[in-house]
Amino acid sequence: MQPLRIVSYGLGPIGVRAASLVLERKGLTLVGAIDTAADKVGRDLAELLALAEPTGIRVEGDARAALERLRPDAVIHCTSSFLPAVKEQLLEAARLGIDVVSSTEEMLVPELQHPELARELDQAARAGGATLVGTGINPGFAMDFVAVVASAVCRRVERVRCVRVVDAGTRRLPLQRKVGASMSTAEFDERARSGGFGHIGMRESVALVARGLGLQIDAIEQSLAPVVSERAHTTPFLTVAPGQVAGIRNIGAGKRGGETVVELDLSMYVGAPDPCDEVFLEGEPRVHLRFEGGLPGDLATAAILVNTLPSVVEASPGLKTVLDLPPPRFRP
Amino acid sequence: MQPLRIVSYGLGPIGVRAASLVLERKGLTLVGAIDTAADKVGRDLAELLALAEPTGIRVEGDARAALERLRPDAVIHCTSSFLPAVKEQLLEAARLGIDVVSSTEEMLVPELQHPELARELDQAARAGGATLVGTGINPGFAMDFVAVVASAVCRRVERVRCVRVVDAGTRRLPLQRKVGASMSTAEFDERARSGGFGHIGMRESVALVARGLGLQIDAIEQSLAPVVSERAHTTPFLTVAPGQVAGIRNIGAGKRGGETVVELDLSMYVGAPDPCDEVFLEGEPRVHLRFEGGLPGDLATAAILVNTLPSVVEASPGLKTVLDLPPPRFRP
Repeated sequence: MQPLRIVSYGLGPIGVRAASLVLERKGLTLVGAIDTAADKVGRDLAELLALAEPTGIRVEGDARAALERLRPDAVIHCTSSFLPAVKEQLLEAARLGIDVVSSTEEMLVPELQHPELARELDQAARAGGATLVGTGINPGFAMDFVAVVASAVCRRVERVRCVRVVDAGTRRLPLQRKVGASMSTAEFDERARSGGFGHIGMRESVALVARGLGLQIDAIEQSLAPVVSERAHTTPFLTVAPGQVAGIRNIGAGKRGGETVVELDLSMYVGAPDPCDEVFLEGEPRVHLRFEGGLPGDLATAAILVNTLPSVVEASPGLKTVLDLPPPRFRP
Repeated sequence: MQPLRIVSYGLGPIGVRAASLVLERKGLTLVGAIDTAADKVGRDLAELLALAEPTGIRVEGDARAALERLRPDAVIHCTSSFLPAVKEQLLEAARLGIDVVSSTEEMLVPELQHPELARELDQAARAGGATLVGTGINPGFAMDFVAVVASAVCRRVERVRCVRVVDAGTRRLPLQRKVGASMSTAEFDERARSGGFGHIGMRESVALVARGLGLQIDAIEQSLAPVVSERAHTTPFLTVAPGQVAGIRNIGAGKRGGETVVELDLSMYVGAPDPCDEVFLEGEPRVHLRFEGGLPGDLATAAILVNTLPSVVEASPGLKTVLDLPPPRFRP
């Protein structure tokens, strides 16, 4: 079989990791790279990936021109968390019949927050003969997909609970900042009120689980609270003093008549002991699944994006979710 | 959406459980039942399922006539572990364009032991417009599918190990017999030499993992040893005395140049402490996944068969594996 021809679209922290993985795989060939940042356009991808040898792939700033010229089998898309911000990017690929695996968190269940936009994307994808899907480790796997897959063994599922504990101290600085590490609680509260804070995609994870298992819900709620450190923790980037914020606890709840039927409990903070990912299904049988040590965020997201490429290329056209495709898996 | 019209084909222990689940589901309608056993033909299904009220579904002994008349969307097929024994049954369904989810262990990777037969089935399925797939808890999930799904988060996978520990004392009598519980070691050895003993589908699980992850192997080996009880264990059906066989340890190995790259380690014995299902992926990252308490065999197999029905109905025609379809999931 010919290797699939892939373009990396968006060269932030996840995008460059995903591009590196594509370069490693026998079954994939990286044929292009797109990013609009002025400090990236024109450079050889090797510089962004910290490779010793040039790749011969120059970062292009004009996405449409690049996609029209290269006509790849699929794009790995890592530009923004929010669907309205990436709409035109996805429509361009869809019209050209180019399949897309996107890390855009809102793409996990696009119609949840953007039903009009989802319809438009689906129509464009069908018309152009492209498949579009959003995934990642969270949302996309640890707190949603895994729970749905575990339900395969169940006669009944009545309630789902997922717990994810991440030691933010082992992650990159932007993530430590994103969870508020080393802030005062007053600062944290102020930023939390302003909105653009905490984990993105929680609502989509709740929705994916509920829809996947046919659990009726009438509301999705979310809470965000600081985890305050009791003792000092020093990461490679910063120090959290006792009494300062170490990170977040973010709980998503899918409710039916006031009762929680889907609970996703995410803790990301510096110094979290015993990181893990767990799924609890209440039903028959009860299922308790645990990833010892937890799943590493950035590497795993890049890996899932790359591991989803063959499925998205084989799938029928349209806007899909991860539940519509054969499961992603490592392939050399 | 209209409920899918389902026929239960084969009404042994797994088949009747699967039929019961179909009756429970809003999204499925049981429209017929097939079994050739003289003591089942003609009876209302309710008698076999121990239901209080008749179902109105009478067990039919002529499979072809039943399938031609009923033309269901899909069949749940639970008649035998071995592909040659079910070949004609599957061909009949395939020619009529009826999709099949089968518990036949050799159907997990049909071409492994029966490449000619697999080709014939695939051609008939494509010609007739039917999809055929084999699944179950083991093979089909615990020691193969789960490992492949877990690899979604991996940059590299070099070696896979799955461990399944089942307390046979909590299972039905035929399973306790099948693992040799309460035999002497001499009896066990004799029956083990004769072949028809132990877990069926181990080779298929090894093959599914290796193919799924692109791990090259040149041989699949298997070992079977008795687990000898140190103390007495009494089940609802029998007593294992100290020194008698409590059950089996069955290890499947996928090898490359003498080195084991896939190891599936299955223990099924009366009195097994700490039943569990575990997956270990060596690679980047390392993954260790554990189902606490393990997955229950009979119920889970019936559930997976039923939970796979919607995917098999939606899939394109042909002979498929569980890796080709969207993952099975509970749906009401």
